[in-house]
Amino acid sequence: MRHSDSASGLFSQPQGIPVRIAATGTSVPPHCVASETYDRRWQLRSGTTAAACGVEQRYQADASLQAQHLATEAAQRALQSAGLHASALDCIVSAGSTPQQAIPCFAAQIQAGLGLQGSGIPAFDMNATCLSFLVALEQLSYAIAAGRFRRVLLVSAELPSRALNPDCRYTAPLFGDGAAAVILERCDDGSSALLAAAQETYSEGVDACHLKAGGSNYFFAGYARSATTGASFFSMDGKALYKLSARHLPALFERVLQQAGVRREQIQCYVPHQASGKALSILPRLLDIPPSRIINILGSFGNQVAASMPFALDAAINSGKAKRGDLIALIGTGAGVSMGIAVLRL
Amino acid sequence: MRHSDSASGLFSQPQGIPVRIAATGTSVPPHCVASETYDRRWQLRSGTTAAACGVEQRYQADASLQAQHLATEAAQRALQSAGLHASALDCIVSAGSTPQQAIPCFAAQIQAGLGLQGSGIPAFDMNATCLSFLVALEQLSYAIAAGRFRRVLLVSAELPSRALNPDCRYTAPLFGDGAAAVILERCDDGSSALLAAAQETYSEGVDACHLKAGGSNYFFAGYARSATTGASFFSMDGKALYKLSARHLPALFERVLQQAGVRREQIQCYVPHQASGKALSILPRLLDIPPSRIINILGSFGNQVAASMPFALDAAINSGKAKRGDLIALIGTGAGVSMGIAVLRL
Repeated sequence: MRHSDSASGLFSQPQGIPVRIAATGTSVPPHCVASETYDRRWQLRSGTTAAACGVEQRYQADASLQAQHLATEAAQRALQSAGLHASALDCIVSAGSTPQQAIPCFAAQIQAGLGLQGSGIPAFDMNATCLSFLVALEQLSYAIAAGRFRRVLLVSAELPSRALNPDCRYTAPLFGDGAAAVILERCDDGSSALLAAAQETYSEGVDACHLKAGGSNYFFAGYARSATTGASFFSMDGKALYKLSARHLPALFERVLQQAGVRREQIQCYVPHQASGKALSILPRLLDIPPSRIINILGSFGNQVAASMPFALDAAINSGKAKRGDLIALIGTGAGVSMGIAVLRL
Repeated sequence: MRHSDSASGLFSQPQGIPVRIAATGTSVPPHCVASETYDRRWQLRSGTTAAACGVEQRYQADASLQAQHLATEAAQRALQSAGLHASALDCIVSAGSTPQQAIPCFAAQIQAGLGLQGSGIPAFDMNATCLSFLVALEQLSYAIAAGRFRRVLLVSAELPSRALNPDCRYTAPLFGDGAAAVILERCDDGSSALLAAAQETYSEGVDACHLKAGGSNYFFAGYARSATTGASFFSMDGKALYKLSARHLPALFERVLQQAGVRREQIQCYVPHQASGKALSILPRLLDIPPSRIINILGSFGNQVAASMPFALDAAINSGKAKRGDLIALIGTGAGVSMGIAVLRL
């Protein structure tokens, strides 16, 4: 074992961290909204909204649907895909930007949704907004490497529709509700591994992407007073996010590749956060990677916040674009501003 | 390395996980509220409230104070105590129940508060309500063991006063605002270590301790509609929490002791979550440990949610009750219902 190389850190273990993505699962609400709905709302020519944000359709929860429902369904599908009963889990982690309610943590509610009352399986939440899944995947890999857990359920369930300003032509059509679950387990034969991972946070962009309500600043009992201030809506400065990502992501990618001992040509599949049409379109030039190897599900699901990356990973595996044994890279950006990359042998 | 022993898991490494608590720091708002204030409000005989909840005084933030301020101050005090500049950190983790706002994560705001813009230091949040600090301490220890980070800042900053029902005689006087920070760093000489840790979550108690607002169920734009429903106030069923803790905590303690290879008599100092006067008073009998070795700061600060445990740890170290090289046990319970124990050589 070695110390980290830099402030943002990179572990160094020749065979990588002994983990494998055992299975994935996803869930969306029943209600699908086509982008023409927004064209009509704003009296635009048909196709304008889809072209502007890169999203043809997205799923949106009605008022009665709870995030816990999507989270549980995605988790059950991942368990079914792995041929496992929920009691085979050693830990449940909710990896997302916003829980269903402030207390208790969302993972405890997911444990309840899976019928695991009485099991004692530890449950907690991790949050780095859109980067939450990547951060949880990496951190829990260390716990697995230490022998603490054998098999961890990571669930990202997001209902961004609840916090979108319906009049904002930039954000309202961009996001979609959904959940994705991944079962991460120990892999001792070296066939699969987390080869390298890194995260960087640049808080000069702390306000570039924000939702001011939902915490102690506009805390609940006093919240009604601020309902008209705009604090209740998500806000995003795409240009500021882009500038920070463009400045730092290429060097981060080079460092992770070097640490993994991998050349970019060896990576068969890139699974990026589905930030926006523009963000996805600049990735090939920014990181010098082939567009054909980049998973893009934005058009069908929108930006699902933390659920986007595991949702795209599920699509990559189910479509055969990422196969067992392949080298894959997860690439994400998020509010904070944070960015992260992980290279895995699937 | 071995697999975990059970669903709730315990790692097994003879020398433990090579980490040390390098320093601690705390912060409270300037405004201190004596329990007599509640006695007068409810026309009770002086001393009644303090006797009922075990809290003589607690600090409460006024409307202008942000949690980020307390978090940053506690972190700066921990850094000062360690003789470190903030740039020496490899990672910043907010370990708490409620962030300052929904997006971005609280840790990014703490990074900004510490003047670390441009540093790239990774920042993310972990949440297991009152158990957040213990869970973060344990999980980040694995990342340190894997060589991913050398030095991690854990910060728990909570403003429970913002979500308390002022008319609830049980919860209103019990909680206090505050923040505590801990610097966790690698320790390769074996003088300090995390010897064993475990967490269990029993979601049959998922509603025993809740705050229904602040997430996607009562999400912001629609929140004003529910302001009168009670969803905006924290609610706690102390009896249900006690029953689950009493049923599971003793066995969890025995397992952690066994895994650490330590007898309870060897533990010089117990640092429990400061749940309530009653919860603290039953610990000696429940776990068969001497009251004189249990840190109790409830009377002066109230239950500070996730900040309680690191705040009590700071008190234990500053009072000399926990000295370098001592065996100490952190013991916590929280919403979920979750419980956790860690044994460290300080």
